[in-house]
Parts: sequence; C-alpha cells; structure tokens
Amino acid sequence: MTITLAVDCMGGDHGPAVIVPAVIDFLQRDADCHVICVGREDDLRPHLANAGSGLAERWSIHHAAEVVGMDESVSSALRNKKDSSMRVMANLVKEGKADAAVSAGNTGALMAISRFVLKTLPGIDRPAIASILPTMKGHTYVLDLGANVDCTAEHLQQFGIMGAMLVAALEHDERPRVGLLNIGEEEIKGNEVVKRASELLRVSGLNFIGNVEGDDIYKGTADVVVCDGFVGNVALKTSEGLAQMIRVFLRQEFSRNIFTRIAGLIAMPVLNAFRARVDHRRYNGASLLGLKGVVVKSHGSADSFAFRHALTRAAEAARERLPEKIAASVAVALEKMEPVPTLCD
Amino acid sequence: MTITLAVDCMGGDHGPAVIVPAVIDFLQRDADCHVICVGREDDLRPHLANAGSGLAERWSIHHAAEVVGMDESVSSALRNKKDSSMRVMANLVKEGKADAAVSAGNTGALMAISRFVLKTLPGIDRPAIASILPTMKGHTYVLDLGANVDCTAEHLQQFGIMGAMLVAALEHDERPRVGLLNIGEEEIKGNEVVKRASELLRVSGLNFIGNVEGDDIYKGTADVVVCDGFVGNVALKTSEGLAQMIRVFLRQEFSRNIFTRIAGLIAMPVLNAFRARVDHRRYNGASLLGLKGVVVKSHGSADSFAFRHALTRAAEAARERLPEKIAASVAVALEKMEPVPTLCD
Repeated sequence: MTITLAVDCMGGDHGPAVIVPAVIDFLQRDADCHVICVGREDDLRPHLANAGSGLAERWSIHHAAEVVGMDESVSSALRNKKDSSMRVMANLVKEGKADAAVSAGNTGALMAISRFVLKTLPGIDRPAIASILPTMKGHTYVLDLGANVDCTAEHLQQFGIMGAMLVAALEHDERPRVGLLNIGEEEIKGNEVVKRASELLRVSGLNFIGNVEGDDIYKGTADVVVCDGFVGNVALKTSEGLAQMIRVFLRQEFSRNIFTRIAGLIAMPVLNAFRARVDHRRYNGASLLGLKGVVVKSHGSADSFAFRHALTRAAEAARERLPEKIAASVAVALEKMEPVPTLCD
Repeated sequence: MTITLAVDCMGGDHGPAVIVPAVIDFLQRDADCHVICVGREDDLRPHLANAGSGLAERWSIHHAAEVVGMDESVSSALRNKKDSSMRVMANLVKEGKADAAVSAGNTGALMAISRFVLKTLPGIDRPAIASILPTMKGHTYVLDLGANVDCTAEHLQQFGIMGAMLVAALEHDERPRVGLLNIGEEEIKGNEVVKRASELLRVSGLNFIGNVEGDDIYKGTADVVVCDGFVGNVALKTSEGLAQMIRVFLRQEFSRNIFTRIAGLIAMPVLNAFRARVDHRRYNGASLLGLKGVVVKSHGSADSFAFRHALTRAAEAARERLPEKIAASVAVALEKMEPVPTLCD
C-alpha cells in the first residue's frame, strides 16, 4: 500500500533547505511512499531539482502562499493563515489526499490547526503529544509533553491508551508496559488526580504496571510513561538541559590543555559511538495523538537527518492505521471499565 | 560562635559506619563546631573510638534506643518511635541544645517529625525541601522537591522567599535570581496556579526573574527555581535517571574492546575530572525550609564524603540564622504585597 505524506516544507527554523533534502532522502529509502510538498512553489522548486528523475513520480508540490511563524500566536495562525502550509497540509489529510502530516513548525499552532481541521477521535477529550526518549534498554514513549496542563484522571487514562496504541503501531509490541509517572514518598504519593488515574488505568485493559518515578523513564521500566503536559514538558526540558550541560562539560574537560586534547583525539571514536547512542535526532518526530489523522511534529531545529526520522515515523503510523486503532482501543476500554467508586459514593 | 549539630547517626542505608566517620572528618575541618551524635550508644561508641583525643571535647553521644526504618510509614515513625534517633535529634534542636539537625533517614518521616516537633515559622503554610543542582555556571537551588503536591500560588510564593533566603545564607548572595518553573508553549503557558504564583512572586520583594523552563535549571538562568513538589521531584528523579544512563553508556562504550579500553585508560584523568565536576555527592544535603530550626536531609545512600557536605551545609545555615531570616523576609513580603486582583474581583 502506498502511503502519501503531506509535508509542511516551510516550517521549522530552516524551512525547505533542510526539509526538502530530508524528503528526497526519505523517498530514496522508502519505495512505498509519496510525498506532497506543501509550501511556496517558488521556494520549493529549486530544492526539489536535486530529486533526480527516478523519484519524479513520487513527489508533488502543493502550493500554499502563507507560512505560520515560529513565534506566531496560535490564534493568529488559526484565524489569519487559512492558506498557510501548515493549514493546507492538515486539509490534505482531512480530504483523504494524504495519509499523514509532518511539520517542524510552531507546536501550539500545529496542535490547534490539526485539532480544528481534523477533530479529535470519539472517546478522546484532548489530543496529546508523545515523544520518544532513549533508555538503558532501548527507548520509551512519554506523553503528554505539553499540549495539556491541568489534566483530569480521565485524560491521563486516555493518554495511556493512545500511548499504548502508538507503541503497538511503531514497535509492533501489542502489550507494551504502561507506567504512570508519580513521586515516591510513601505518604504523599501523588496528588488526587494521579491516584484516580491509576485506578482508571488499572481497569482499562492495558498492560498497566503501576506508578513509575522520574528515573524510571531512563531505566526503561515502561514502554509508555503517562503524565500531564506540564510535568512531561518539565521532564523533557530538564533532560535536554542536563544532556547539554554534560556535553559542554565533557568538551571543556577534553580541551583543557595539550594532554587532554590528545586524550580526546584518542578517545574520539568511543565518544562518537557514545554520542550516536544518545543522538536525539534519531528520536525526532513527536506524535500528535487522538486526532482523526496522523500528525507528526518535528523539532523546529531539526536537520535533514532528524527530519527524515520524523517522516519515517509518520509513514509507519499511517501504515498501521494508528487513529483507527486508538479509537477501537478507547471504545474497548470504555466498555471494559467497571464503575470505579469515587469519593462521593 | 560555636555551632552545635545534632546528628541522627542511625539513619540512611549505612548508619553509623558511614555517618560517624563523616562527623569526625567534619570536626577536623570545622574548628567551631560541636556534634551531638544521636543513636544507640553501643552502636556509636566503636566508630567514635577513631576520633582521636584532639576532638574529644567536640563531640558527645546522646543515646536514643530506637531507629526509624528507611521504609517505615510516616505515621508509625511519628506515633510509635518517640525515642528514635530522628525524634531525639529534633527534640535537641527544639530544646535549644543544638543549632541544627542532620539525618540521612526516611525523608517523609524526617519532614513529619521536624514539623511536629519544631513547628513551622509564622507566615509559612508548608515546609519545603530544597536541593542543590550543578549548572553550567555553578549551581542552583530547586524547591520544592517532594514535600508538597497540590500547591497553591501562595505556597509557591513562600517557596520563593525561603529559597532566596537559603541562597543568601549559604552563598552570601543577598539578591539571588528567583525563577518560577513553567512550560514554554505560548498559549498554554502554565496552569492557573503557576500564573497566579508569578504575580505573587513579582510583588514579593524578591529578585524575581519570571518564568524559567526545565532546561534553564542546568543553564544556571536562576539561583533559585521554584516549583511544586510533584514537578520538582519528577525533574530531580528524571535528572538522576538520565545521569545514570549516560554514566552506564560511557562505561559500556569504553569497555567494548581492547582498543576502547586503552582509549579509556588514556582518557581516564579527563573523565575523572568530568565526573568530579558533576559529582552529586558534593551537592548532598537538602534543606527542610520553613521550620523553626535548621534541618538538613542527607541522601540515604550517602557515603562519608557526601554526608560531610550535608553537615557543612547545616552548620552554615545555623551560623547564618536561616530560620530567623526566612521569618523576617516572609513578614516583609506580606507587608510589601499590594492586594493582587483575583478572578473573583
């Protein structure tokens, strides 16, 4: 089955200069895909000239005159940019002309436009953003990463279901371990929302392993880690900050003097292997889950290598019909759920 | 002025075998301190035999028959262990026989016992736990780290004041930069509590620099990072997990084969310098703030080197009369505060 991706070629920090080469590279690797490049035709055409005649049948340009700015407000993007590459991309999925959408643009605008154009799946109150993080044992999926603050227990349950279906689709693991992010102190274990979410996840038909703590993310204790968007965003950004600090400290220590520089040269292949292992570019491509369509968000600063990974992820999710699977799984969970006693009973 | 520390010598994963040597090392370095070693006399005496006659006047043993278990419930510790080393240590501060308390025991029990015995300062609703983290520029203090979930905006404001006073006491920086941990998405910036806390911090007389994000912790953007205990605990534990993963990956890459092992030997001094720079043992000693007395919590798994740092931190906070400073600063903030319009106005 051929999968068609609609790609916002204008988004991100670098626009078509980075995104079009990623598209070409992606098409060369995945013979079963077609890409609709959305954006200003004049801006895209020169970059697509490098595609080569072998790929000619597998890409097309869909002109869109406007671009949503990286710092543009969500309301402005939604109301005033009806012909933005992001909006046109979402419309292509809505109209069935594409199976998935990929953008490196402004996250808030992408979420708002996707939600407005595609709508949420039945049984899903709020879409969520799921990202992949490396772990000691492989990698794990964390959601939500910033789309939702002030979540209810029901939202967290839905995140668990969506995350499990995402892992099933992308990793072909039908019973991924789902953990709920909590804190460890005995007497203060979580707030009321997290406690109730734990009850809901327990009866949702998932392979729910209970509470996990922050360090469990990187231990690989769970395949899916569920949390509200505030906590998830802080965990992700804190990790980025720490990783960056460690990179800088390592570089500084190896460039301290002539002896450390030589040591650095000798250790270079090992350090490069280490870097490749934690290379966040390989984990690029966050999924906007809970929508009637596959939407993948690339990091704004992604290079072509990173953007290609986002494209691959989108194609795989579309191939596995992720939205249908989520909808089915939510329906099953709602049926399975016995009424959970609440504080008022 | 001589500072007297009451030290729970039975707490932590290793008890007196690690804590007493740390006390001896501490006394040798800080000539103006006295330590009351609290715990089972028979367990402590053999370890104190190594103290040497030069220190004989500077330590004493205060017998306490019981020990709070590392996994013991807070309610059990509070109700059934009236003669625990932790409880007796807190009593010594309460009675003015010691200027500060240090324990590596169970965090929940330490907080509950400290709060019960010492009480909170006027103007403080809830004590908080503040810890130190390394940053690109030095280090920063983060609070709360797990004592309080479901915080109000007023609690977060109090955390800001307490954190600022802690930095003033330990770093002799009278106008530390205070940041409020938030998330970055334009339209969803923080929840209602964080938005209101931002207003309260702005009028509190602190050097409030506004919102910071997770990565700012390690960038060193602020000297004090304020957040609720759930978020803070997740940020801390996530960091611990990531740091551990990076350590393991580095070790694995350097032990892959004979060539990488040789590279590792050559790079060893550099890697050791790097490790020393991010050595969490140097940051051991979290402050329980907002109590009528100085209480410092050491990591349960601390070794003697790490525990000594907790002792040093406690002595410094006591020397600087931290609780009095916090009380005064809270009073000033309450006076300075203009009434902030609420949603109901």
